[in-house]
Order: sequence, then structure tokens, then C-alpha cells
Amino acid sequence: MLTEAINRCQQRINQHLSTIFDAIPENEPRLKAAMRYGVLLGGKRVRPFLVYSVGEMLGLKTEQLDDCAAAIECIHAYSLIHDDLPAMDNDELRRGQPTVHVAFNEATAILAGDALQTLAFELISQHDSGFSASQQLHMVQVLAKASGYLGMCGGQALDLAATDHEIPLAELTRLHRLKTGALISCAVELAVIAADIADTEKRQLMIYADAIGLAFQVQDDILDIIGSTEELGKPQGSDTRANKSTYPRLLGLEGAKATAEKLLQEALSAIGNLPYNSRLIAEFARYIIERRV
Amino acid sequence: MLTEAINRCQQRINQHLSTIFDAIPENEPRLKAAMRYGVLLGGKRVRPFLVYSVGEMLGLKTEQLDDCAAAIECIHAYSLIHDDLPAMDNDELRRGQPTVHVAFNEATAILAGDALQTLAFELISQHDSGFSASQQLHMVQVLAKASGYLGMCGGQALDLAATDHEIPLAELTRLHRLKTGALISCAVELAVIAADIADTEKRQLMIYADAIGLAFQVQDDILDIIGSTEELGKPQGSDTRANKSTYPRLLGLEGAKATAEKLLQEALSAIGNLPYNSRLIAEFARYIIERRV
Repeated sequence: MLTEAINRCQQRINQHLSTIFDAIPENEPRLKAAMRYGVLLGGKRVRPFLVYSVGEMLGLKTEQLDDCAAAIECIHAYSLIHDDLPAMDNDELRRGQPTVHVAFNEATAILAGDALQTLAFELISQHDSGFSASQQLHMVQVLAKASGYLGMCGGQALDLAATDHEIPLAELTRLHRLKTGALISCAVELAVIAADIADTEKRQLMIYADAIGLAFQVQDDILDIIGSTEELGKPQGSDTRANKSTYPRLLGLEGAKATAEKLLQEALSAIGNLPYNSRLIAEFARYIIERRV
Repeated sequence: MLTEAINRCQQRINQHLSTIFDAIPENEPRLKAAMRYGVLLGGKRVRPFLVYSVGEMLGLKTEQLDDCAAAIECIHAYSLIHDDLPAMDNDELRRGQPTVHVAFNEATAILAGDALQTLAFELISQHDSGFSASQQLHMVQVLAKASGYLGMCGGQALDLAATDHEIPLAELTRLHRLKTGALISCAVELAVIAADIADTEKRQLMIYADAIGLAFQVQDDILDIIGSTEELGKPQGSDTRANKSTYPRLLGLEGAKATAEKLLQEALSAIGNLPYNSRLIAEFARYIIERRV
């Protein structure tokens, strides 16, 4: 059931992103092609999956969630394009394909990232969303906070500062909560705002989101040790070589696995008593820490 | 009167931007310092001036306009930081000071630009703005459109594509309307949305904005020929050396000056019959094409 739901979501978001790009005029073909390439390079679509699955669980229709899902994926894609740049992580492959600055060039990659960030705010603030202006404004606020200095960009800055020396566990946790967790939580929060549910239920879902956001990164660290290059689409052990602190490095492999399991239990317990059918998002939480890619 | 108004606006926006940064926690000191450096590096503050002067002309209080002015300046500052990068224009000086990637490093400059773009959307969507949710949502839409693929980023892509070969006048005009004009128009439009005036008056103000946005760039091209390095804060003639098409190159110096004057008359004629005291923004339009820096 989960695999099918994940596949369905991937097809849905890829289709919707394609439709968005089909509708954008060809004024600057190279920039448009780079944006499209960066956002349609594939990936697990974890953030869109959360928007769709939480939103549908709360009673929304899939088509009501398309633009939220696309917006958050545009933010994620822009961050990957910029992270891959030579001045940042200098990665030439992403999901087994050339990164944007390799497929195009550096200047175009910088601009494509910039324009994808803007596109995210355009998508989430669109006319005819069916949501109220105050709901949409709230979505903008949440997306901006999760993406910026106090969220993803801040986490990326921490990450840069933490290269080539060991950082304590509390600092690593803060880094991951910002760099990866903030946007994963944001995906859940967008769905919650769209559905306009009670604060108590929202709080439980946000605990779930925080836990799986961190668990996702812990599992990424684990996979970096045990995964194969082929499965990950990037050189295995690349974090170790870049001399970055990781959960397995600080806690040992078993310690990292125990942390992921603990976060899973936190996530499951948070959604256990919600008056919704939370089976799919519970399965997804387990998938987060059991996935091999 | 104009000089005094420009100085007052510069002080006001610098003070407001400082206050915004003072309130941001020191989580990532280096990123925060780079963002602050980039946005407080000085400059004419043309876009904030337009927000303030048009907004005040329409009856708004200065403090109601602070966040719109700051948001648009954050977008402008982020675009300069990214434009200056080695992969883009590779400029080491801006307003006589080291550019952000020189004062910090490339990775930090990329991130600081990214986070400044996000900050713009945060500022314009803030709680307690005093505007209605639908006004604020409209501001987000307008800011996103002016900044993204169909605006400033698109213009930057055109600019990259137009280096090292001559482009026709219509293409150069389109380039400048997007790269510079879109954000200048946006400044006026934000003030118009904030004041919630009639559509007919809005249309006149947008004609004014379009004309001075283009005139600004024509004058920039002219100054690049006749200005001195000291006055401009960047090497004089740098556009010529980079082999970019400019108005003087396509039209001759006198032809470019005549174009600027024609745009000024368009701008003045558009605001001539508005039921507001448009003297300051009329003076500003003249300043745009008479300035020496």
C-alpha cells in the first residue's frame, strides 16, 4: 500500500510540475530548461508525499494540494542546485545524473535556483487556489520561515561551518533539524493549514513531522555508511570523505540506528490517537528509517 | 527638496534594515553578517524611495511602508550578491567596497543571497502589517512575479545570453525592462496595493513606473560611458569591456540621451493629472535621468 501510494504521489507531482513548466512561456529557454531539469531530476518526493498524504488524511482532495506540493518541491530543488555548486559541495552527480551546473553552467545553475525559489512563492500565493487569503498568507509565512535563515538556509550555513571538524551531537541535531527537518515539517504544516484543523491535532502532527524530519537525516547518515553508490546515486561515503560529522560517527552505527528507531516511535505515538486514518503516514514514518535509498 | 527626501529615505531604510537584523538571532553569525553586509552596503535606495514616496503621496504613513521597502531592497540586494559572483559578472567591488563573496566567501555569498530572497517574502507576509490578508497576498504575488523567471531572474538570464554579441534594440529594451524595470515597477505597485487606490489611477502610476524603470537603465548605460570610476564605485566602461550591448552603443550617446528624455516625458505625462501632489515623484523621475552616479 505504501509503495503504491509513493509511486502515485511521484507520478502526480512530476505531472503537475511538468504542467506548470508547460504553461511558462519560453522567454528564456535556457533558464527555463535548467529550472525544469533541476526540479524534474527525480527523487523520492518526500515533501510532496507528506503534503498529499497528510492533506488527504485530513479530508482534502488531491488537486487542492498540488500547488503546495509543487511549491515545497521547488524550494527543495533550488537548495539542491545551489548545494551542488562548486563553491558549495561541488557535486557533479545527483541521482545518477549530471547536476545542473554540469548539465548547463554555473551561472545558469545559480539563476535557476534563484528563480525556483521565487516560483515556490508564486505557486503558493496563486489566485484561484480555493483557500482563503489568510490561509494562503499563512502558507507563505510558513514556507518562508522554513526556507530561510531560521530554517533551511541557516542549516546549510551550519553545515558549511561544520565541515572538517567534529561537532557535538546537540549541534549536529540542530543542523539537521534546520537543513532537512524544517522543510519536512513545513510540508506537513502546509497540509494542516490547507485543512484548517484544530490546534491540538495540529500539535500532534507537528511532533510527528519533527520526528520524521530528523529521522530522515539520521537514516541518510546511516545509508552513507552502508549504502552502495549505485543505490544512492552519489558516491558512497561522500559525507565521511568530506569530513562531516554524522550520527554514526558520533554514536556508532548501532547508536544511530537506535536513534532512528526512537524517533520513529515518537512519530507513531504522536499520531496514534488522532481521529483520522493515520495508517499511511505511520507506514511512511517506518519507511523513512528502513529505506535503502 | 528631492535631495533631502532621498537622504531621509536612505536613512529610514538603513535604520529599518538594521532594526530587522538586530532582531534576528545570532544562530549563524557568519551568514547573518554576510546578509547584513550585502543589504547595508549602501546604494541609492531607488526602490525603497519609490515605495515611500508613492505610498506617502497616496496618504500612507511612513511606518506602514517600512516592510515593503525593506522587502524589495532585500530582493535587490540578493540579486546584486549573486550577480557579482565569479560565475556571473565576477565583480570584486560594489560601491567602492569588496563584494560579498570577496568579503566572506563564495559559498556564504550564495547562501546569503538565497536567505535574503526568503527574508523578503517573510517581511512582506508578516503578521501585524496593518494590511488585510488579501492585500498582503497580493503583495506576495507581485513581488514574486517581479523577481522571478518572468521578471528580474529572466532579465538576468537574457543578460547572460547577450554577452559578447550585439543584440537588437527591442531585445535590449526587453532585457532592461525585466532585469531592472520589473523590480522598480514592483516598488510602485507595492505602494499602490498598500494604499488600495482606484484602478484608473493605478494604471497611470504603473505607466510612470515602467517609464522610469527603463529610463534608469538607459541612464546607467550612459553613465557607464561618461561617468568616472570614482563616482560609480565600479570600473568605468565595464559594460563596454564585457562586450555588452548598451543604449549608447546601439543609438549613440545623443540617441540614448534622447530616449531617456522621452521616457521622462512619458513618466511625467502619466502622473500629470493624478489627484495627488505628485511633485516629489516628478522630481525623482527627472533625477533618474540626470543623476551622475
